[in-house]
Amino acid sequence: MPELRRDPIVGRWVVIDSEHLKGPADFPKEDNTPKDQAICPFCPGREHQTPEEVDAIRPLPGPANTPGWLVRTVPNKFPVLTSVGALQKEGIGIYDQMDGVGAHEVLIECPHHDKTLTDLTLEETKAVVSQYQSRARQLSQDSRFKYVVIFKNFGSSAGATVEHTHSQIIALPMVPKTVLEELKGAEYYHQYRGRCIFCDMIVQEYQDKERIVTENAGFLAFCPFAPRYAFETWIIPKAHSADFSVMDEATQTHLAQILQDVLQRMKKVLGNPSYNYYLHMSPIGYANPACYHWHIEIIPKLTRSVGFEWGSGLHIVPTFPQDAARFLQNSSL
Amino acid sequence: MPELRRDPIVGRWVVIDSEHLKGPADFPKEDNTPKDQAICPFCPGREHQTPEEVDAIRPLPGPANTPGWLVRTVPNKFPVLTSVGALQKEGIGIYDQMDGVGAHEVLIECPHHDKTLTDLTLEETKAVVSQYQSRARQLSQDSRFKYVVIFKNFGSSAGATVEHTHSQIIALPMVPKTVLEELKGAEYYHQYRGRCIFCDMIVQEYQDKERIVTENAGFLAFCPFAPRYAFETWIIPKAHSADFSVMDEATQTHLAQILQDVLQRMKKVLGNPSYNYYLHMSPIGYANPACYHWHIEIIPKLTRSVGFEWGSGLHIVPTFPQDAARFLQNSSL
Repeated sequence: MPELRRDPIVGRWVVIDSEHLKGPADFPKEDNTPKDQAICPFCPGREHQTPEEVDAIRPLPGPANTPGWLVRTVPNKFPVLTSVGALQKEGIGIYDQMDGVGAHEVLIECPHHDKTLTDLTLEETKAVVSQYQSRARQLSQDSRFKYVVIFKNFGSSAGATVEHTHSQIIALPMVPKTVLEELKGAEYYHQYRGRCIFCDMIVQEYQDKERIVTENAGFLAFCPFAPRYAFETWIIPKAHSADFSVMDEATQTHLAQILQDVLQRMKKVLGNPSYNYYLHMSPIGYANPACYHWHIEIIPKLTRSVGFEWGSGLHIVPTFPQDAARFLQNSSL
Repeated sequence: MPELRRDPIVGRWVVIDSEHLKGPADFPKEDNTPKDQAICPFCPGREHQTPEEVDAIRPLPGPANTPGWLVRTVPNKFPVLTSVGALQKEGIGIYDQMDGVGAHEVLIECPHHDKTLTDLTLEETKAVVSQYQSRARQLSQDSRFKYVVIFKNFGSSAGATVEHTHSQIIALPMVPKTVLEELKGAEYYHQYRGRCIFCDMIVQEYQDKERIVTENAGFLAFCPFAPRYAFETWIIPKAHSADFSVMDEATQTHLAQILQDVLQRMKKVLGNPSYNYYLHMSPIGYANPACYHWHIEIIPKLTRSVGFEWGSGLHIVPTFPQDAARFLQNSSL
């Protein structure tokens, strides 16, 4: 019997398709090995092929836009939003529009073309996390912006167009709908329970145990009860925190460790799949930090077609989260 | 300068990527010609290869599950929900689940393997529309169901797995989130304006003119102001109506005519693209019919990657709706 499950935060129902269950062996495999080093604009020595860097971590002092960096952030050469200009808003009858003002940056995660995020050392991964934080902090200073999105597309079927390992950062003049929905659900829950719904989810996950993938001193990784996709996994700080940008150094290390741990497990169990992850943090200057709890949502891209979800309004998930968690848990690293 | 546009119903902001605009020639083309007639389970004479039909239109009287049908509806052989059983609900701590009770049917739109929906005669298309309505009506009688979803995936990149032209029908024990959001937005608008937001959109579209694709006595087809995808097109009845299942015969004819008109224009302009469409109607027994307005949303599947939208929370649309409308409008049929 298929099972309908409801996400407690945004109220989305999903179907776990228990009659046609799929394990790791049932998904098509992809070759996501980096190949095109010869023409890569993100490799050291080709810094002039990108717009001028806005931030970088260099272990030894050195001039900007030259090799020697561990992590490097540059404006996206093909930005979807423009960083120049004031925010013009206009109503057109019942419709609203505004100028597409925002920032769109690329964070190059390491100088090595042949490494993916899972191949980095803990120190290198920590530099990525630390750069995430420093970009979130700096972009939050711009009064035109209301939200900073940090995300990563890995592999072409997840939308990556450059294979050199990188993340993307977008600063927006409004809060995206996906986050607004979470805020609304979390605020509503807080209003009548007086507690953070994400903190309650953590308690529930420890109680049920079966959906936990891994944990460390600072973070829990689990497969959510009502996932949208097979092997969807969330990473969440154990201590309540709405604002990603205030994380201390020990927490940075814990985040780097668990992020790499989870991605390595996915790589091993699912055969280096394409994936997307998305850091959900509170909006800039958010007034209700007691209600929200930042976290990372990781979606391996295992099924190609998205027509069904769009057409039916239902996510059909071929893997129970407890089964996904067990596969990921048992992958010896 | 990119443009941010807000959908007035659900409040979703999208980016029109005006710096990298795309017209019909810029999207990759697909070959969606039907080929596999030899093994097709939906062809006449192979009625025994599907579950027994639940509904059909036969111009001449004849036994069920034999050739002679114009349109034929059968239970999906691989349903995502099961039609047997009562609706068991259960809470698991903060989570909710229920049995996946529902109906999942396949509507075979014509007996001819080599025809797609755009090749049918007006009479044949009207039979499809009429069968949509009769399934919606019949499934609404089942007290376990709260919503009937009628949708079509055409072409493999839109999720179609059988090429013989067909639609799908799903009856659900709850209202899908995509519809709930529209209902909420429309109810809110009605509460403070006292009018249907969809009716106001129609007025606005006639005023602005530039996004109209085509129209007939009963329906308007237009590219919405804040689309999620390039060439997204909506078909909406001009007269207010929340309940799809009460449409009279003249309206059925008008719907068949405009549906075919729009799909033929898309085929001509975009080169027989894969597409999804989705009929949004009010929930079964909906209490506020003055607030909602049924319509069809058509999404040609022109860009493969969906990683960016998921990751950033933003739909990036490479075509202005007024440009898409102009291309579709000018395609001589």
